[in-house]
Amino acid sequence: MAEVKLLGFWYSPFSHRVEWALKLKGVKYEYREEDRDNKSSLLLQSNPVYKKVPVLIHNGKPIVESIVILEYIDETFEGPSILSKDPYDRALARFWAKFLDDKVTAIVNTFLRQGEEQEKGKNEVCEMLKVLDNELKDKKFFVGDKFGFADIAANLVAFWLGVFEEASGVVLVTSENFPNFCKWRHEYINCSQVKESLPPRDELLAFYRARARAPK
Amino acid sequence: MAEVKLLGFWYSPFSHRVEWALKLKGVKYEYREEDRDNKSSLLLQSNPVYKKVPVLIHNGKPIVESIVILEYIDETFEGPSILSKDPYDRALARFWAKFLDDKVTAIVNTFLRQGEEQEKGKNEVCEMLKVLDNELKDKKFFVGDKFGFADIAANLVAFWLGVFEEASGVVLVTSENFPNFCKWRHEYINCSQVKESLPPRDELLAFYRARARAPK
Repeated sequence: MAEVKLLGFWYSPFSHRVEWALKLKGVKYEYREEDRDNKSSLLLQSNPVYKKVPVLIHNGKPIVESIVILEYIDETFEGPSILSKDPYDRALARFWAKFLDDKVTAIVNTFLRQGEEQEKGKNEVCEMLKVLDNELKDKKFFVGDKFGFADIAANLVAFWLGVFEEASGVVLVTSENFPNFCKWRHEYINCSQVKESLPPRDELLAFYRARARAPK
Repeated sequence: MAEVKLLGFWYSPFSHRVEWALKLKGVKYEYREEDRDNKSSLLLQSNPVYKKVPVLIHNGKPIVESIVILEYIDETFEGPSILSKDPYDRALARFWAKFLDDKVTAIVNTFLRQGEEQEKGKNEVCEMLKVLDNELKDKKFFVGDKFGFADIAANLVAFWLGVFEEASGVVLVTSENFPNFCKWRHEYINCSQVKESLPPRDELLAFYRARARAPK
C-alpha cells in the first residue's frame, strides 16, 4: 500500500479540499476514484460511520472528514503551513471553516431539492452570502494575507456554488447583491494556489446538470 | 477587563465544555451569565454571526464556537493537554467531537419539538446511539485512556441527554438497547474530571421541563 492514499470523487469539493492540502504540502499520494453507486470495500471499512469520501489513508490508518483531514495533514507533513502558527488566527480559520461546513445541507437543499426544503435552503444560503459578503470586504483570503485552512474549506462557495447555480438554474449570487463576495471569488479562482487545482468546469457542469435532473 | 472572560448560560452543555477545559488547564477566568432574552452588548459584539454563547474573551479578543474555543485553550494555556500530541489520536478526537456536534439539531428536535421534526430527530438520535454504543464497548474515554477533547464534547450525550429525556418524557436510552453506552455514561459522570463540574441535576431538570412545556 502506498504511504498516502486518497479515496475521493473527482467532482466533490470535499475531496478537492484534501487534494489541495496535499499539493500545498508537496505530499506525494495515490488517488483512487470511488464509484458512488458501488463503493469499494476499502472505503466502507475505512469510514464505517459515514461511508463517505474523502478518506485519507496514511500508513494503513484511515482519517475521515475533510476538515479533520486538513488538520492531520498540517500536523503530519513538512511544507508550508495550512493553519497559521498564531492561536487566535487558527481559531478564526477554524470558525470560518465550521461556518462554511454548517451551510452544506442548506446548499444541497437549494440546488438539488424542491419545494419547502428548497425555499428554506435558499433563505439560509442568502443569509450565508450576506455574512460572507460582509466579512470579505477588501479581503484576499479569510485570515491574514495567506491562502490557508479557511480558504481551502471555502472551495465549495468559491467555485462549486457557481456551478450549482448554472446546473440548477437557481441563481442567488449577483454582483449587485453580493459585490464583495463576487470580487473575492474572482480573485480566489485565479490565485496561484487554486487555478491549477480546479476540476474542469464544463465536465463538472455536465455532471451536476445530470444530478439536478435526476429523480431524488 | 479580566484577562480571560467567559460568557455563558449555566444550563448549556456548550458553555460547560469551555468551563471544563479552563478548569482542566487551571486557567483563572471571570464567568458572566448571559440572559437568553436580553443578551449583553458584549455578547452581540463578540459573536455577531451567531449571537450565541459560549464566547471566550482573551485579552479583549473574542473566540466563539465551543469546539474552536477548546482548541484555542489547548494551544494557548499551559497545563494538561486536552488533545493528545499524536496527530492520529488528535484526528480521532476531532472526528468524534464533530460527530457529536453534527447531532445537535436532531437532539433538539427530539426533545423540544413535536410531530414530523420530532420523529425524524428520534430516528437520527437512535442511529447516533447505535454508533456510540458500538464505539464505546469497553472504553473509558473516546481516545486512549485519557479524558480529553472528545470526552468534553460528549458532555451533551453523557449528562444532558438523560436530563432531556426526563424533562420531555421521550425516553430512548435503556440499558437493554444501549448497554455499552449506559456503562460508559455511568463511569463518565462519576469520573474525577466530570463529577465536580456538573451543574445541579435538579435545577437543570426544572429548567428543561419548563422549556419542554413552553410554546415553540
